[in-house]
Amino acid sequence: MSKKIVIHSKMKDYDVEFIDDPAEHLTEHFNEEVILVIDEQVFEIYKTSLEPVTKKYRTVFLIANENNKTMDYSQEIISRLLLKNIRKSDTLIAIGGGITQDIVTFISSIIFRGVRWIFYPTTLLAQGDSCIGSKSSINFRSYKNLVGTFNPPDHIFISTWFLETLSESEIRSGIGEMMHYFLNSNFEIASKFMSEHTKFFEEVSLLKPFIKQSLLIKRVVIEVDEFDANLRHIFNYGHTFGHAIEAITNYSIPHGQAISIGMNIANFISLKKDMISPQQFEDMYALLKPNIPEFRIHEQNIDDYCTALSKDKKNVGNKLGCILTEGVGKMKKCFVDIDNDFRSLLLTYSQIYG
Amino acid sequence: MSKKIVIHSKMKDYDVEFIDDPAEHLTEHFNEEVILVIDEQVFEIYKTSLEPVTKKYRTVFLIANENNKTMDYSQEIISRLLLKNIRKSDTLIAIGGGITQDIVTFISSIIFRGVRWIFYPTTLLAQGDSCIGSKSSINFRSYKNLVGTFNPPDHIFISTWFLETLSESEIRSGIGEMMHYFLNSNFEIASKFMSEHTKFFEEVSLLKPFIKQSLLIKRVVIEVDEFDANLRHIFNYGHTFGHAIEAITNYSIPHGQAISIGMNIANFISLKKDMISPQQFEDMYALLKPNIPEFRIHEQNIDDYCTALSKDKKNVGNKLGCILTEGVGKMKKCFVDIDNDFRSLLLTYSQIYG
Repeated sequence: MSKKIVIHSKMKDYDVEFIDDPAEHLTEHFNEEVILVIDEQVFEIYKTSLEPVTKKYRTVFLIANENNKTMDYSQEIISRLLLKNIRKSDTLIAIGGGITQDIVTFISSIIFRGVRWIFYPTTLLAQGDSCIGSKSSINFRSYKNLVGTFNPPDHIFISTWFLETLSESEIRSGIGEMMHYFLNSNFEIASKFMSEHTKFFEEVSLLKPFIKQSLLIKRVVIEVDEFDANLRHIFNYGHTFGHAIEAITNYSIPHGQAISIGMNIANFISLKKDMISPQQFEDMYALLKPNIPEFRIHEQNIDDYCTALSKDKKNVGNKLGCILTEGVGKMKKCFVDIDNDFRSLLLTYSQIYG
Repeated sequence: MSKKIVIHSKMKDYDVEFIDDPAEHLTEHFNEEVILVIDEQVFEIYKTSLEPVTKKYRTVFLIANENNKTMDYSQEIISRLLLKNIRKSDTLIAIGGGITQDIVTFISSIIFRGVRWIFYPTTLLAQGDSCIGSKSSINFRSYKNLVGTFNPPDHIFISTWFLETLSESEIRSGIGEMMHYFLNSNFEIASKFMSEHTKFFEEVSLLKPFIKQSLLIKRVVIEVDEFDANLRHIFNYGHTFGHAIEAITNYSIPHGQAISIGMNIANFISLKKDMISPQQFEDMYALLKPNIPEFRIHEQNIDDYCTALSKDKKNVGNKLGCILTEGVGKMKKCFVDIDNDFRSLLLTYSQIYG
């Protein structure tokens, strides 16, 4: 397999390269026309290795949390970049996870009407999913991800070295998101992935071939529908039901884990609609189960859950727009009424699997 | 000549159509999936005609002034659009001048990662220049136009009806900007334009063929270099020197009039560098003169003026990046030292032409 994955984009082609030591890579590959934008927490963890890099290049630190994924905080970072005398010819180098990516994607779309940027993703979620696909998502007041742009980096450099300090919960989150790509592809890869998954917590470098595989599956779709107009919607599989869980639990369940529950709910609805057989449901459940965290829909939270679902921007009228399945690799866009039958179905689901 | 001008863009092709009555056009051409974003001042002037339109469609008003050309005010407008239940399938219709265009271009680039938008320009500057070319320019704290996006509207509808209420000064501003395109093209069109120019103040509809001509000249260049990487730089002719005049006079001289002075200064420098003959300078000066407002560079403001020039983002090192001329239609990118000789040259210029 070639070392680089090239992504063809409407805006510019870009590539993903797997590297070993990111600190060494950063030191050797750039000149003074770069500014690093680093997640402060990542910097603290890797200070010994990264400090020489931040001494070599101009550097801006950011605090990567959900509350900072805003236009206001983006303006704060633009101010700091101006203090570092950013020019149109400079390249931003983002080092961090998905939130760092969102903020740098957004800023580099708009400052001087666009500057080049490069990404070193540090979480499994960012390495196995978000680093490609060009989207940025910025919260706007109470609206999650309302604002954003499409703006891929020029290069992505992935090192599993960054995964070594992730918590088990963060690894599980990445596994959930990657599993969603594998279930969008074929049973064999999904099954192989889960057969090895307990080892990942001990030896993160084992994740490397699966990160590659996950990105290759995503690439096929985003190259056809980069701007999320139709085909790319299949990647909302598990997400519609997962986002609503995140919303009503105040984001206490990590994204990729909520998506794991979301996929199981989507499969359960598909089963009840006779889109898949009980055997198909059970086969997928066996793969998802090790990564499903505790969560229960019950009489006390079902109103909130249905309200959260009803706000999904992919809905049409009162119908919930979601991705259901006719089996592994056969996802299908469907519209579902959020009515009493649907509520009963969710409660039944949680009695069995919650 | 066909009624529509089609512009080929990297993002999407779009077109300019000349129409008669914009209120009638607005009423007849859209369904409920639009939201109007109108400059409040334009609405006040044309209330009788536009009120029925604002009753038919959801409408948001904005106050179009330089202080509101910010990310903060854009957030305020996004909030108002959310109150009008904006959805991704909606189209924004901007009605106003350049500032309205900047704000709506920016918002429609980022809300839901992009919504469609349509533009009815109401000033001569916007009709004869800015409506095509896809740029938005947003001020950031003390930095003018630091932030922005490239995002052309889907359609532009031009009606000279809106020009009837412009002040003579605003018409002069548009004339200055259009003249800059004509001098980038050929002497005949520039000369024809100025031979008729006194009539424009009486009968704005006479401007129509020149607006068309100005856009056609701009189109050739932006279709080749939409993202302003090289060729499009020729349109900075007059702008580098004009922007610095705007800056030191606190924007009291309307943009297109400052550009008229800027072109004359660029021509004078070109003359002193033997890039054009005295006759060529005089021929161009005769065309520019009727539109040049009073302004003088003198010992008291030359430091400010040179400081403003030194901040231009097209500079390289200490050299001023600007467009000079080898004659009409022959603009050339040059770099000029901002030194004592340059200061003397500016003072000499102002003694003769200020």
